Amino acid sequence: MTTTPMPVLEELSAAEALRLMAGVPVGRVVFTEGALPAIRPVHFVLDDGGIVFRIVGAQRLADGLHNTVVAFQTDEYQADRGDGWTVTATGHATRITDQDEIARLARQLPLPWSDRGHMFRIEPELVTGRRLTR
Amino acid sequence: MTTTPMPVLEELSAAEALRLMAGVPVGRVVFTEGALPAIRPVHFVLDDGGIVFRIVGAQRLADGLHNTVVAFQTDEYQADRGDGWTVTATGHATRITDQDEIARLARQLPLPWSDRGHMFRIEPELVTGRRLTR
Repeated sequence: MTTTPMPVLEELSAAEALRLMAGVPVGRVVFTEGALPAIRPVHFVLDDGGIVFRIVGAQRLADGLHNTVVAFQTDEYQADRGDGWTVTATGHATRITDQDEIARLARQLPLPWSDRGHMFRIEPELVTGRRLTR
Repeated sequence: MTTTPMPVLEELSAAEALRLMAGVPVGRVVFTEGALPAIRPVHFVLDDGGIVFRIVGAQRLADGLHNTVVAFQTDEYQADRGDGWTVTATGHATRITDQDEIARLARQLPLPWSDRGHMFRIEPELVTGRRLTR
């Protein structure tokens, strides 16, 4: 049996964490739905420090997200190397209703995700990240 | 501009969802920490219908997880094809304290994750999954 190198866990600065987050296409919105923890993968874009995404679902879901504190998480993991990183941004989610703003942001989201569902913006108040290396 | 095929979102059966979950090495525990939504990637193993993982962190984190309802999520996304799946299991998390049980389960977890942190088991009460295809 070969020795497995012990992993090293490194805390990331907020700037480095957001840089990593910006490099992946999909993140996960973590929220509470009907008093239960819930999570939804979404395409997203970083816009002037905010995390913007659309979420497809019932009106109840959109109402439940608006003006609540949510977490937004991205990660990457390389199973063969056993290394990776995770970044979580926590902040208030606000539903975007201004049609000009929706049109502007929709152009930044990848097709066909740009034109469906309720659009939200998270203003990160806390950004944490950890990188795992061997 | 080429036409992007509209994605098709398919609800998965619980059996198919758990089969997909079993095929990936890392999942994400979704819980509440200090009244805020929190998420942690972990290595895990499915054991007789339960989701078993170790989580490294403060005693406060372990105390906070025990006997609470958490979500456990896995996904895969192929950016080049724009397809993927997500599976979420929701249920009570229980800290495992029996040393024989810990030793038995630790042998199923990949090194070096098998020997550090508090070990938990989630008994899924609700399993949902969706597959996205073009």
